[in-house]
Amino acid sequence: MADERAAAPTSLLDELRRAVRDVSADPDLLASYRRDQAAPALLEAGTPAALARPVSTAEVEAAVRVAARHRVPVVPRGAGSGLTGGANAIDGCLVLGLERMDRLLDVDAAARTATFQPGLVNAALREEVRPHGLTYAPDPASMEFSTLGGNIATNAGGLCCVKYGVTRDALLELEVVLADGVAIRTGHRTRKGVAGYDLVGLLCGSEGTLGIVTEATVRLLPAPPAGCTLAAGFPTLAGAGTAVARIAGEQRPSLLELMDQATVRAVEARYPMELDLDAGAYLFAAVDEAPEPAREAIAAIARICEEEGADLVVASDDPAEGRMLTAARRLAYPALEQLGSTLLDDVAVPVPRVPALLSGVERIAAESGVLIGTFGHAGEGNMHPTIVYDHRDADQVARVRTAFTAILRLALELGGTIAGEHGVGLLKRDALDLELGPTRAVQARIKQALDPDGILNPGKGI
Amino acid sequence: MADERAAAPTSLLDELRRAVRDVSADPDLLASYRRDQAAPALLEAGTPAALARPVSTAEVEAAVRVAARHRVPVVPRGAGSGLTGGANAIDGCLVLGLERMDRLLDVDAAARTATFQPGLVNAALREEVRPHGLTYAPDPASMEFSTLGGNIATNAGGLCCVKYGVTRDALLELEVVLADGVAIRTGHRTRKGVAGYDLVGLLCGSEGTLGIVTEATVRLLPAPPAGCTLAAGFPTLAGAGTAVARIAGEQRPSLLELMDQATVRAVEARYPMELDLDAGAYLFAAVDEAPEPAREAIAAIARICEEEGADLVVASDDPAEGRMLTAARRLAYPALEQLGSTLLDDVAVPVPRVPALLSGVERIAAESGVLIGTFGHAGEGNMHPTIVYDHRDADQVARVRTAFTAILRLALELGGTIAGEHGVGLLKRDALDLELGPTRAVQARIKQALDPDGILNPGKGI
Repeated sequence: MADERAAAPTSLLDELRRAVRDVSADPDLLASYRRDQAAPALLEAGTPAALARPVSTAEVEAAVRVAARHRVPVVPRGAGSGLTGGANAIDGCLVLGLERMDRLLDVDAAARTATFQPGLVNAALREEVRPHGLTYAPDPASMEFSTLGGNIATNAGGLCCVKYGVTRDALLELEVVLADGVAIRTGHRTRKGVAGYDLVGLLCGSEGTLGIVTEATVRLLPAPPAGCTLAAGFPTLAGAGTAVARIAGEQRPSLLELMDQATVRAVEARYPMELDLDAGAYLFAAVDEAPEPAREAIAAIARICEEEGADLVVASDDPAEGRMLTAARRLAYPALEQLGSTLLDDVAVPVPRVPALLSGVERIAAESGVLIGTFGHAGEGNMHPTIVYDHRDADQVARVRTAFTAILRLALELGGTIAGEHGVGLLKRDALDLELGPTRAVQARIKQALDPDGILNPGKGI
Repeated sequence: MADERAAAPTSLLDELRRAVRDVSADPDLLASYRRDQAAPALLEAGTPAALARPVSTAEVEAAVRVAARHRVPVVPRGAGSGLTGGANAIDGCLVLGLERMDRLLDVDAAARTATFQPGLVNAALREEVRPHGLTYAPDPASMEFSTLGGNIATNAGGLCCVKYGVTRDALLELEVVLADGVAIRTGHRTRKGVAGYDLVGLLCGSEGTLGIVTEATVRLLPAPPAGCTLAAGFPTLAGAGTAVARIAGEQRPSLLELMDQATVRAVEARYPMELDLDAGAYLFAAVDEAPEPAREAIAAIARICEEEGADLVVASDDPAEGRMLTAARRLAYPALEQLGSTLLDDVAVPVPRVPALLSGVERIAAESGVLIGTFGHAGEGNMHPTIVYDHRDADQVARVRTAFTAILRLALELGGTIAGEHGVGLLKRDALDLELGPTRAVQARIKQALDPDGILNPGKGI
């Protein structure tokens, strides 16, 4: 994998070793830092010159200064669980592995805030704040292994965002090392605050292209009750789509997910659980209120499902049963992954357009002759059409590319976006023009203003 | 007020008249466009060279191009209801009065979005979407007369933000004319969306210094039920402050406001309503849930108030009675205004620090010998200490300045911000350094990137 082409100049390595305690140029180790989880058949990854794993803000500052002096690109990286190549290496770059900066620095239970380093894993933060009766809302499917720094870099979403919003909505303050190797602090610990431009919002989702997060403070919420859960099978995709739009409008679910027929069949094939293989779609909902309001809300959601044609509706107020009811949804991606190489897309459309998105994806699958299983966060219109293919078959790979771009165009036609919660990375960089048009040049001016030499994760995101 | 010093060069006026149908250089008219509602004794206001009142994005583009060619500052303005001098004129500037761009362009009831021009008044949007069973959440106290463009420019807050968030949280898409006179569109109509940097969030709250909003799309919400309301009198400020922190943590109020003794006395003096003049503070809360959960929540809030020492607790599930219960809060600022000139401050601290903020403000009032009445959005720590003074008394004005700065420093010491929801404008521009420190230079790089000649509302905000 690694080769000697991009071997670091001695002076770069020497300076890095003076700046950061843990620096490596070992080709085998570097090879394991070349890629994130994005489809390797479709995306390039370069060979880094060096890996630095800082343990402090001061070490990040020092490493970035060395890289800036040498005009060497810096690719920051958390767990490497990204799905768009945002953490893929660039030839000759410095990979900044932030996994050792994983300390929880403070929990202020009264103010309901937590402060941590970027390498802390999402689920670890949840675990730490649970004894305070608190929770951190954003729950990307990767939360057991993805880092909060990566969540911030991509403005990660998740399942409960339908009720609680995305990572940006939870972020209060950041410490960020800028391209000149100097750390700044920005933001405020209050919900309201208008002193200066919203740099926190700007940095969140910027995929390491504007600065490297070294510390963050987020808002916590009182841990919600377990609540009630529902699963419903619909004979048609259209019925499920209409039900989603009505539920999102009339109720306040903490989870509202959909899975199409192709995904249902993939799950049932790998994890038999008596799913109805003829169902057009399955819908999953949860309400995390107190027992009585939760039961009432789930009953109302059940009625909507029945009115929109669901022929199977199962609800429970037992947490263990609830997990069983939503197991099929959690197994959607693992099941599709068993069928071949996967390219997980991530588009969002206004909720009323979800049925049109799903039927359009079915059409694209038929036209391009690839299998696409679609599942995702229907309650906010954010769906993951997942293309399954054989990466050794060049013809299939070409058709995958065609189908992928067709899905992005479809989302835009429906008034949506090409990237909901996974970032742009390398995967959608070319497609950005479709959505941003002339605004992309304005984005570039901001990049230029904060990183004039273009050393921070160049070629990613915008 | 106006003088001839800054009379527009003929060529500027001629070009403006070719660009925009409604252009004026009439000194009397210009004089009425020199200031917003910020304390005139404390803030300068220049004399504009011209006023243009465009009716379309194309006219805004054309006007900005003329100003850019002449390097004339552009001061955008909605209703002029701002409280920090953000819309105050600059000598020789072009005032862009956006009040004629007041059309509601679209309501998409299914997707729950509304699209409008910036001159539309906040309350008018509410009125228009009500027949759809929808509402627009951000509710600044000025909502009956302030424009949505101004709300966006300041990232305005309001009373119900404790439950529903601020203007930025409701914003989806913007059309904005940049400093080169070219309109761009940015944002997306979905809650999730990570294609490109968050320019919508950056522009919101930028006080006309980065671009001029010509169209906006916001998220609407299902209109909530009337719910229940509560008023409580506390013998001590500390008890009320503790109650606020507990209520904010344990319940989900749609309004959670506080008023200190000085404000209570001012209200009772002008609008006798049998308020307890010895009360240390009054607390107001509302819950906008369905009748039964609302009654339960208000009962829980009443219990908290009693546990924290309230000696008067009145609750109602009748909307008319609810308005009576909160009348004192709505009359707080009008009552203080009767006592003299006012300087309304706007700071925010973490909710547990509200008692410390309020007692600190009392200390500052005593030390500086000025009357300060404090009221505001305690549920999110955003309070409005309002200094009452005689603007003809130079010594008092000096003490007002001292007290004002002391309040800003106090908010920062308590981990808060100098500006919660009214913007920075001219009023807090010098104080920004206290909060931003070196980050201010980073903010300036963004300003420089988007407005290299500095023609958009120079000297305001950052």
